[in-house]
Amino acid sequence: MNPIQQRTIADTGSQARTNSPGAAKTLASLRDEVETQLDRMVTARSEFPTNLHEVMRYSLLGGGKRIRAILCVLVSEAADNRGRAFAMKAGCAIEMVHAASLILDDLPCMDAATTRRGRPTTHRKFGDASSILAAIGLLNRAYEVIAECSATQERTKCEAIRALTKAVGTEGMITGQEMDLNEHNTFSDAANVERLNWLKTGVLFCTAAEMGSISAGLDKKTTDAVRRFSTHIGLAFQTADDVIDQQATAVTAGKDVRQDTDKQTLVSIFGVDGALQSCEEHLELARAALLESGLDGKVLNAFIDSIFANRTRN
Amino acid sequence: MNPIQQRTIADTGSQARTNSPGAAKTLASLRDEVETQLDRMVTARSEFPTNLHEVMRYSLLGGGKRIRAILCVLVSEAADNRGRAFAMKAGCAIEMVHAASLILDDLPCMDAATTRRGRPTTHRKFGDASSILAAIGLLNRAYEVIAECSATQERTKCEAIRALTKAVGTEGMITGQEMDLNEHNTFSDAANVERLNWLKTGVLFCTAAEMGSISAGLDKKTTDAVRRFSTHIGLAFQTADDVIDQQATAVTAGKDVRQDTDKQTLVSIFGVDGALQSCEEHLELARAALLESGLDGKVLNAFIDSIFANRTRN
Repeated sequence: MNPIQQRTIADTGSQARTNSPGAAKTLASLRDEVETQLDRMVTARSEFPTNLHEVMRYSLLGGGKRIRAILCVLVSEAADNRGRAFAMKAGCAIEMVHAASLILDDLPCMDAATTRRGRPTTHRKFGDASSILAAIGLLNRAYEVIAECSATQERTKCEAIRALTKAVGTEGMITGQEMDLNEHNTFSDAANVERLNWLKTGVLFCTAAEMGSISAGLDKKTTDAVRRFSTHIGLAFQTADDVIDQQATAVTAGKDVRQDTDKQTLVSIFGVDGALQSCEEHLELARAALLESGLDGKVLNAFIDSIFANRTRN
Repeated sequence: MNPIQQRTIADTGSQARTNSPGAAKTLASLRDEVETQLDRMVTARSEFPTNLHEVMRYSLLGGGKRIRAILCVLVSEAADNRGRAFAMKAGCAIEMVHAASLILDDLPCMDAATTRRGRPTTHRKFGDASSILAAIGLLNRAYEVIAECSATQERTKCEAIRALTKAVGTEGMITGQEMDLNEHNTFSDAANVERLNWLKTGVLFCTAAEMGSISAGLDKKTTDAVRRFSTHIGLAFQTADDVIDQQATAVTAGKDVRQDTDKQTLVSIFGVDGALQSCEEHLELARAALLESGLDGKVLNAFIDSIFANRTRN
């Protein structure tokens, strides 16, 4: 029996909330809104340079769940909708950074993945060179989208850009990928694995929520709680992803699985049950931090439930 | 006889100015200042993640002439030093973007170059994956350096970031590289070659000078003249580079030469003499635009002379 089916990752009374039709509708319509915005933000493939625009659109609009963007917007909504319009832009910028990172991670010189979201990876469809240029294009467009937002204070935009540069740079994602490639098989303890999970996944979740906080102009104490909340969501998410990788087939996961057999994960260290328990602990800590933030947690809690009820990484 | 030696590219009375010891000293000390700043802006290789920092430093601090950064700073100096401190940061950011573009252009899936500035290209020394991550790191750090500059108005920083995103994105450098890879050998006329030269080289020169203008808070009319000035410098520079590629050996150029034998350049269309004439025409137009800008052109003119007297691309 598949342990994922046997046991719910977020088995903390979440089903009742997840099944709330109101919250589900809110989240579905928010996802559609993100998708529409992203579609508008990247130029149509009919416009010069047609090939590059096509590659960027293929990798950005390929059907992600938009968890990071939704997280960003929900934080601003939970703060009485303050700065929501900018949170939507910033959330879309985060999705662009995420899409760029997936293009690069999948390259033959990195994870050499062939399938992503049930389709050929970008480099398999368009070649390595155009894929790398499209990744640069998406990362760059992320900064542009934030910088050109005319209705937002310049101070807020600079703060958001600083937060994003920190997430992408050597304190964040690129170091996560570098460690994953060159150091991962030397790890022997959970602390190192959690550090890598933070760099690879946690940091962008954390920054997504922080961007929502920056958009809403929340104070430092609240922002810190929001950062802790989203960091734990990200760590739970990465662990759930490792469980999926261990259990799923490529068809159910929509991407290559068991690529990481020589790499340590919480699953290889603690087994599936232990990893699921770590996941639950992170979700508990996330909920506690959300409560501490003082923000309206209703939709955010429903969102967490929906992420871990679906359990498919996108 | 080597036509480069036979004929001076910037043979427009430049030698007298180039040989001005005062201007030469100013430019040399400015280059040193840029180098020192760049060294400070990228973390030491002893700090985690050591490998990634080493790759970033190898490609950034590998002995470039810092033409783009100097251009940026000289524009602010020509405007009574207004915004000079920020122009120095912005100029360094431009150098980071330039270094990132060289890493990527040299990759096996792009130009497959083996030597750059007399040393192994970054991917040959560190492998493709770390090189790509370092390129992302440098581009990202460029935005960070601008965004974190505490002594500058947020409005100025956002304007500089917008200008840089435009230079890097699908209206600029990534499209230049994409065209160079996939469309270059279909070109048959000079207009297409000049368009490519603009995207590959002109746009970053233009943006470097524009950043100087933004730093100094110059008005639109002056900024437009500054943009025209630097665009022509960039186009002259790319053409001079193609002449060098045609004439030089790898030892004199410090990089692979004659990589582009199947690609059209102004040299292949007009011959060396015709290309040198185009170069001179661009330099004349650059000088006219500089005059029109109303800025103090003394050091900027000397700088142009020094670039084309040396003629080595960096």
